[in-house]
Amino acid sequence: MEHEGEKAGRREGCGIVGIALAQGEVAWPIFYALYALQHRGQESAGIAVSSGVQGGAEAGSGDREKITVHKEMGLVSEVFTPNRLAELTGSFGIGHVRYPTSGPPKVENAEPLLVAYRDGELAIAHNGNLVNTGALRNALEKEGRIFHSDTDTEVLAQLLAKELLHRPPIEALKEVMECVVGSYSLVVLLNETLLAVRDPWSIKPLCLGRVRAGAGELGEGYIVASESPAIELLGGEFIRDLGPGEVLVISPSGYQSSAAPAPHRELTVTSHRLVCGAQTAHCIFEYIYFARPDSAIDGRLVYDVRLKIGERLADEHPVDADIVSPVPDSGITFAIGYAKRSGIDYAESLIKNRYVGRTFIMPEQRSRDIAVHLKLNVVRANVAGKRIVLVDDSIVRGTTSRRIVEYLKRQGAKEVHVRIGSPPIIAPCYLGIDTPTREELVASRLSLEEVRTYLKADSIGYVSLDGLIEAVGMAEQQLCLGCLTSSYPVEIPGELCRSRQLDLAHF
Amino acid sequence: MEHEGEKAGRREGCGIVGIALAQGEVAWPIFYALYALQHRGQESAGIAVSSGVQGGAEAGSGDREKITVHKEMGLVSEVFTPNRLAELTGSFGIGHVRYPTSGPPKVENAEPLLVAYRDGELAIAHNGNLVNTGALRNALEKEGRIFHSDTDTEVLAQLLAKELLHRPPIEALKEVMECVVGSYSLVVLLNETLLAVRDPWSIKPLCLGRVRAGAGELGEGYIVASESPAIELLGGEFIRDLGPGEVLVISPSGYQSSAAPAPHRELTVTSHRLVCGAQTAHCIFEYIYFARPDSAIDGRLVYDVRLKIGERLADEHPVDADIVSPVPDSGITFAIGYAKRSGIDYAESLIKNRYVGRTFIMPEQRSRDIAVHLKLNVVRANVAGKRIVLVDDSIVRGTTSRRIVEYLKRQGAKEVHVRIGSPPIIAPCYLGIDTPTREELVASRLSLEEVRTYLKADSIGYVSLDGLIEAVGMAEQQLCLGCLTSSYPVEIPGELCRSRQLDLAHF
Amino acid sequence: MEHEGEKAGRREGCGIVGIALAQGEVAWPIFYALYALQHRGQESAGIAVSSGVQGGAEAGSGDREKITVHKEMGLVSEVFTPNRLAELTGSFGIGHVRYPTSGPPKVENAEPLLVAYRDGELAIAHNGNLVNTGALRNALEKEGRIFHSDTDTEVLAQLLAKELLHRPPIEALKEVMECVVGSYSLVVLLNETLLAVRDPWSIKPLCLGRVRAGAGELGEGYIVASESPAIELLGGEFIRDLGPGEVLVISPSGYQSSAAPAPHRELTVTSHRLVCGAQTAHCIFEYIYFARPDSAIDGRLVYDVRLKIGERLADEHPVDADIVSPVPDSGITFAIGYAKRSGIDYAESLIKNRYVGRTFIMPEQRSRDIAVHLKLNVVRANVAGKRIVLVDDSIVRGTTSRRIVEYLKRQGAKEVHVRIGSPPIIAPCYLGIDTPTREELVASRLSLEEVRTYLKADSIGYVSLDGLIEAVGMAEQQLCLGCLTSSYPVEIPGELCRSRQLDLAHF
Amino acid sequence: MEHEGEKAGRREGCGIVGIALAQGEVAWPIFYALYALQHRGQESAGIAVSSGVQGGAEAGSGDREKITVHKEMGLVSEVFTPNRLAELTGSFGIGHVRYPTSGPPKVENAEPLLVAYRDGELAIAHNGNLVNTGALRNALEKEGRIFHSDTDTEVLAQLLAKELLHRPPIEALKEVMECVVGSYSLVVLLNETLLAVRDPWSIKPLCLGRVRAGAGELGEGYIVASESPAIELLGGEFIRDLGPGEVLVISPSGYQSSAAPAPHRELTVTSHRLVCGAQTAHCIFEYIYFARPDSAIDGRLVYDVRLKIGERLADEHPVDADIVSPVPDSGITFAIGYAKRSGIDYAESLIKNRYVGRTFIMPEQRSRDIAVHLKLNVVRANVAGKRIVLVDDSIVRGTTSRRIVEYLKRQGAKEVHVRIGSPPIIAPCYLGIDTPTREELVASRLSLEEVRTYLKADSIGYVSLDGLIEAVGMAEQQLCLGCLTSSYPVEIPGELCRSRQLDLAHF
Repeated sequence: MEHEGEKAGRREGCGIVGIALAQGEVAWPIFYALYALQHRGQESAGIAVSSGVQGGAEAGSGDREKITVHKEMGLVSEVFTPNRLAELTGSFGIGHVRYPTSGPPKVENAEPLLVAYRDGELAIAHNGNLVNTGALRNALEKEGRIFHSDTDTEVLAQLLAKELLHRPPIEALKEVMECVVGSYSLVVLLNETLLAVRDPWSIKPLCLGRVRAGAGELGEGYIVASESPAIELLGGEFIRDLGPGEVLVISPSGYQSSAAPAPHRELTVTSHRLVCGAQTAHCIFEYIYFARPDSAIDGRLVYDVRLKIGERLADEHPVDADIVSPVPDSGITFAIGYAKRSGIDYAESLIKNRYVGRTFIMPEQRSRDIAVHLKLNVVRANVAGKRIVLVDDSIVRGTTSRRIVEYLKRQGAKEVHVRIGSPPIIAPCYLGIDTPTREELVASRLSLEEVRTYLKADSIGYVSLDGLIEAVGMAEQQLCLGCLTSSYPVEIPGELCRSRQLDLAHF
Repeated sequence: MEHEGEKAGRREGCGIVGIALAQGEVAWPIFYALYALQHRGQESAGIAVSSGVQGGAEAGSGDREKITVHKEMGLVSEVFTPNRLAELTGSFGIGHVRYPTSGPPKVENAEPLLVAYRDGELAIAHNGNLVNTGALRNALEKEGRIFHSDTDTEVLAQLLAKELLHRPPIEALKEVMECVVGSYSLVVLLNETLLAVRDPWSIKPLCLGRVRAGAGELGEGYIVASESPAIELLGGEFIRDLGPGEVLVISPSGYQSSAAPAPHRELTVTSHRLVCGAQTAHCIFEYIYFARPDSAIDGRLVYDVRLKIGERLADEHPVDADIVSPVPDSGITFAIGYAKRSGIDYAESLIKNRYVGRTFIMPEQRSRDIAVHLKLNVVRANVAGKRIVLVDDSIVRGTTSRRIVEYLKRQGAKEVHVRIGSPPIIAPCYLGIDTPTREELVASRLSLEEVRTYLKADSIGYVSLDGLIEAVGMAEQQLCLGCLTSSYPVEIPGELCRSRQLDLAHF
Repeated sequence: MEHEGEKAGRREGCGIVGIALAQGEVAWPIFYALYALQHRGQESAGIAVSSGVQGGAEAGSGDREKITVHKEMGLVSEVFTPNRLAELTGSFGIGHVRYPTSGPPKVENAEPLLVAYRDGELAIAHNGNLVNTGALRNALEKEGRIFHSDTDTEVLAQLLAKELLHRPPIEALKEVMECVVGSYSLVVLLNETLLAVRDPWSIKPLCLGRVRAGAGELGEGYIVASESPAIELLGGEFIRDLGPGEVLVISPSGYQSSAAPAPHRELTVTSHRLVCGAQTAHCIFEYIYFARPDSAIDGRLVYDVRLKIGERLADEHPVDADIVSPVPDSGITFAIGYAKRSGIDYAESLIKNRYVGRTFIMPEQRSRDIAVHLKLNVVRANVAGKRIVLVDDSIVRGTTSRRIVEYLKRQGAKEVHVRIGSPPIIAPCYLGIDTPTREELVASRLSLEEVRTYLKADSIGYVSLDGLIEAVGMAEQQLCLGCLTSSYPVEIPGELCRSRQLDLAHF
Repeated sequence: MEHEGEKAGRREGCGIVGIALAQGEVAWPIFYALYALQHRGQESAGIAVSSGVQGGAEAGSGDREKITVHKEMGLVSEVFTPNRLAELTGSFGIGHVRYPTSGPPKVENAEPLLVAYRDGELAIAHNGNLVNTGALRNALEKEGRIFHSDTDTEVLAQLLAKELLHRPPIEALKEVMECVVGSYSLVVLLNETLLAVRDPWSIKPLCLGRVRAGAGELGEGYIVASESPAIELLGGEFIRDLGPGEVLVISPSGYQSSAAPAPHRELTVTSHRLVCGAQTAHCIFEYIYFARPDSAIDGRLVYDVRLKIGERLADEHPVDADIVSPVPDSGITFAIGYAKRSGIDYAESLIKNRYVGRTFIMPEQRSRDIAVHLKLNVVRANVAGKRIVLVDDSIVRGTTSRRIVEYLKRQGAKEVHVRIGSPPIIAPCYLGIDTPTREELVASRLSLEEVRTYLKADSIGYVSLDGLIEAVGMAEQQLCLGCLTSSYPVEIPGELCRSRQLDLAHF
């Protein structure tokens, strides 16, 4: 029904948040924070809250049922009501929003996942994708273990519960991190302790913030979230991104005896760099598409990166035109950058319908333009007779881009020059984005000129890989560029690995 | 809000059904069968169907996701629609209805439980209650296993998956049955095989039926269900009750090489008496209250048992009165028996409102009669000036009985003689009925005369234990009478066990 | 989907209630009262409450929006929640439950109907059926009036609003009653006044009750309801049935200057016999089928009438048999009477499934027995080898009765003797019961012996018209027997009218 | 809960559409068109479709129930499903989306309104607000008429039905239009005829389009809609805006004997200029706020008007700054214009959360910034240390603007210069916008400098009235500027009327 466009289904980004308060209820702030992350997933939403006070990960004696969870299919605003939030009592909690995946939506796959283990309860919310789940799950099943869902998250929960038999939480996490491969940003409630984990390659984002008493709506505490606007929404202060392989442990004071000097009177935060690759591999598509423009990820403001890419595009692919227009909303910041650098007027030639939401298309009309027209409409004065630089973030299958160009031409555009804020996507993502196969990727199948012809564009220009990397301002080796280069930071059967031997340094 | 009356919450009976067809879809017949079992549980309903054809329990190679499940809070008619049934494709399936339990209703506890294990998938539906769950779960957790729910069923699934590593299904089940104690009637889908299990004490009912081609709505096949009316609803033929410790294996022919001669061309049914106690311990309350009157359980038609109890009550506690009236619906058959034997006219003095369903009572009126009045209303001509023999099945807390007697008196009843179709309930049930503590049981707290005074009745008479046993027509040792005698068929900490050493004969 | 059986759709009974309290909120008691009337209609439910205090029907100056209404498709328990009841504030109110009618359910047809007119607001709830709606509506439309629904109720509202222009409420009602023909029991909120109206033939029931302070859950006040159990549920005291053509006006004291001596300090009740036919024509099917057995209607307890019919049946159609069994629930009281008189044992051979509710039948199985089997199951011990007297209230199309007889025979019944608590239904009802056409009525098409053959019964016996009338205990002329005699109390095109010239005496 | 911001509740714009097809089903295209108009109202949505073929407004003999309607509270995507659309069969139809109004949402107020009248059925959907409803309704009530809702639409339906008694549809409409005062764009289904009506002052927009066979998704036909993008979405061709007092009649050919030459083989469209004021009074706020930027209204592309206002603002209120930023989304086009003219870089300093939708704010946090923060977040790089020109369309109460300025300052903005795309709003709107009282309008209470101080802005600049009018490109007399000037095009008690004597020229 929905998701007609080419962008549909290509990403499986999720959003996660964990909040620990010195006192007060955590359900409402998590609920608000999930709003700030809603763009990362609209299929399901969930919150788990720990109501216990004593105990914690090492005590383990505690009564069961200290953690309560509510999760359902739907948007944050649909899943939670004031009554439901009131039932989630406690000062430590985690939240999750999930992106629509293939197949019928299943509440069984919604997160956080809450399970009981020997020493209490464990709730996990996960953003990312493991590449060795199959092998890990097979190994667990060979021990007679059972699985309730198909998620990586349940594999992580099983591995962690198993290691917790033999070692304290941090060491258990280290064992788990040494055997899982792929992208994973995690928030975990281990009884009354909040853990935040980022994989050794730092593929998916995760950052830490703080609220001080009086500074915002809540008591004093710490926030871990996929993107910084979740911290800002709560009036909090951004502290830093988590490093590769880093684990943060946030617990009521007194718990962690070997703790670093407590930055806070009542909560203790300790940092552990458990497992570390030689290099980071930050997902390039967080900058290009996923993240909100107002997010700062690994030291780069997304808005800035996109603006610079737009400027670079103007340098690399100049053209004589009347206006620069974005494909809304994903192309806006790139287009502002292109317009600024080129001196060509920025103007909206396409207006996005804000209310489309989930819709259905009459079967007979699926092949026609109705899906594009429901979402976009032209501003005729900015199209008819105009030479338009049309800027978007990326092209996946090319079908939507082609429909938009056709549409502009039919409305009288004299020329349409397509400019794209990423290099051609030529390979699948195995690390958290649900991209199609190589056969479906237009840039994998066709040459540049063939893509232009397919799109019926007057010219086409992708930003260069160098230009992109320069705009991000990191070394190429620090980024995961798998979908653009076919070279991946971790070993994937049948694909190139940029470092045959991944050096895992433990410390 | 609801469940104001004393009967509310006292039982945790569930209903289960498993159907295997030689061909055709099994979801609709399971759906119908659940209607026949709806009285056993109204909290949630679920159906799991196996869509695979080849494979089976021993093959194990199969793709995952062969079994599909749909379960939700609500009545069968609310949970399933034609569209949902159409999505459950396959010829083998199981179904479950659950009784409301304490705490907020949780879909996590709904059944069937579907999990993946090393060799495929496993779905279980359970009626009963284990008494050593805590120990079993602790042992499993000590191996690092995790639990998603609080149900006995998940414990059973874990135990079974673990044993299946090392031995074929039947032997695995035997291992499991040797370590769990309590009541359990189970239907299990092990990939494309349907298993039906009854505990060694035969505490909860389970029976087998057959449909022949042309005899009913479906293709040829086998039905296992909590009560026989589920078989009759489908036009099937009752074969027999399962014996103590018996396991039935129903699979596509050719699967079970060591099978008994197949009674059917395409399906093979084999019977295994895996574990057996010295004696059965059929739940007496199935006859008194749980089961439908049209059910035949372990060779006794429930209607007949209740009729005989009513007759026995008339013999044991005769009284000079104008009419015999039941508390509807649970007292009806007992009252017919009492009337028949005593020669006193059977008449309805209380009319039950068929449509009350879930309701709410204004807080200020909770203590008043509104809860009783919403459900029952008097037929004045049969009350005013009349001497009434009021017959009910049992008394738990006594509060509802007291309200009914008060109500009849207020409407002009000259005398109300309470007659009860069971001996006094003096002890809790640990084996599948959610009875209150001894303190809440009126017959545990008070003497017979005190109970009469509390109820404001003119006389009171419970059927004697001997009378009850005679009406059932079994030896006392074949029945579980724990709630009436405080002596239980299995060891329960702090309670008497009727046989210190339970002889488990394996064969 | 549902309503497969012959009884489905044959009646369009609704239930109405009006309550006026001296003080306190009326929404909760109306909600409770609707429970007691739920058997009269399960399609929709609604409550309208008047929040104003001053004003009233004659004052007319009042602000608009004094009356609030909530109505929806569904059962009372589904339509109302504590929150919704809390939004309906006021001491005067009316309620309605509606029976499923043909066509897709439409909330537009739900009642009470609330409209604004010149002098304020008007809410009406109606039980019955007008036979001259077409003519009245045409006349109103010729004045340029518009209609929002297809209901008689909207016609009544328009007529009343029109008359209220020129005369006080009572006189306006009289004008309306003089021009409408058919059955109508009404409760009306005219601003803060509660009116109750019964048609000149008293076809549909309506009765008055009182609550006294301290006697029940509410403050002092008056209750008008379709059936007396609604009064009893509230702890109220039955006063009397409304007479033919009677209008009751219940208002805050001081309002009605020409009032009879107020029976209550704060509320005034006045009675007006506005329009009166020569004779009453009480619907015979209220006694036979519609009403609850615990209702007293026009001086006759329904239970008693049914019991006497059963006894009369035993006299008129004796038979040598083993047991007397009802078709539950409608045949129960008749069967008790038959058993009592005949001396044959009363026994349940059919058990009704209490939880069927709305269901759906697989299309391929519609023609088979599944619809009957979902609702009824045999008690084998009371069927196999038994000669059964099977008692039901009435036969409409005959298809369900035939299926039940077939079912009993298939289960081994030796003989099935059908006994029916009404004479053959040979003609349609135009006055409130949605009966099928003559062609569909089995007793209209076939002779008695042909009906027996069609049902495959061993014998058949309907109670005689004389026997029925004697059991009710009224003169034949006081009853509407149209469906049994084809002679109607009012003129209906193409049908016989028992009194060509209906004498309307006004006083 | 929601609508915390100042803009909430200030407008009562609705969206309407009517489509007539020569053949084929009209429900899907109306559904699509309502998506294009969803921004005009999110409270409820509805579609009415005429299924009849013969008949029409003058025939009048027809069976009832030719028009079917479905309407509900919620967004278009929530109210309609493919199944529901399939039930709405017919080639002529109308649709409506409604803006949230005060009080609890009532489905009774949803449109289209469908009523029966003497000659058939009548469905109406309305955008606008009448100022003499009270008087008209009083007059109708004095004739004994009743009202089911509080809407102007029901008054229009009653008036029209009344006139249709005596004259043909066009003349009846003329009579109605001569007595109602206010804004009204209407689409009406009069049996199988589609009527489109625009009030004599052309206050609210309404335009006509055409689809040709092969040009789009549908058969040939005509479209009337509040805004032109609804036509474009369907692949249709914009023809023209309706003129003041114009009525279009679209009917199956052959119906309208006195028709203008039919532009289409099977449908006849005739135009009637029934009632005309001396001057138009197009609502200025359609250009400033309501309409989509891609709409062309009365010859002006809204995007162009807003761009010119932005440029004019730059001329009238220049300032030395680093960036120009809009308050998204309403300020975007103005800001692009300001940036273009001033040469200051256009940059996004505030990011709007696209998914907020309906939400709730914890009571304790209502007074804080959470409402603003849920919707908007800053792009720090574009705020910290920056001098920002912050552009929005208008200021109503001022509370949201103040919060945004405070927020930017707190995030480090060096200067915030507020620029507003409309003159100060100093007076209420009586003609279709639900503005607050004068006391609540910040510009009515405070001087310009006081407003600046209240907002904590470094400077403030509203576009001048002359600048605004010039940007629109019409004469001042052609516009309704009531909220900006306190002088209204129609007489409103207690307000100035710009033309004491409104010349109504009939032709």
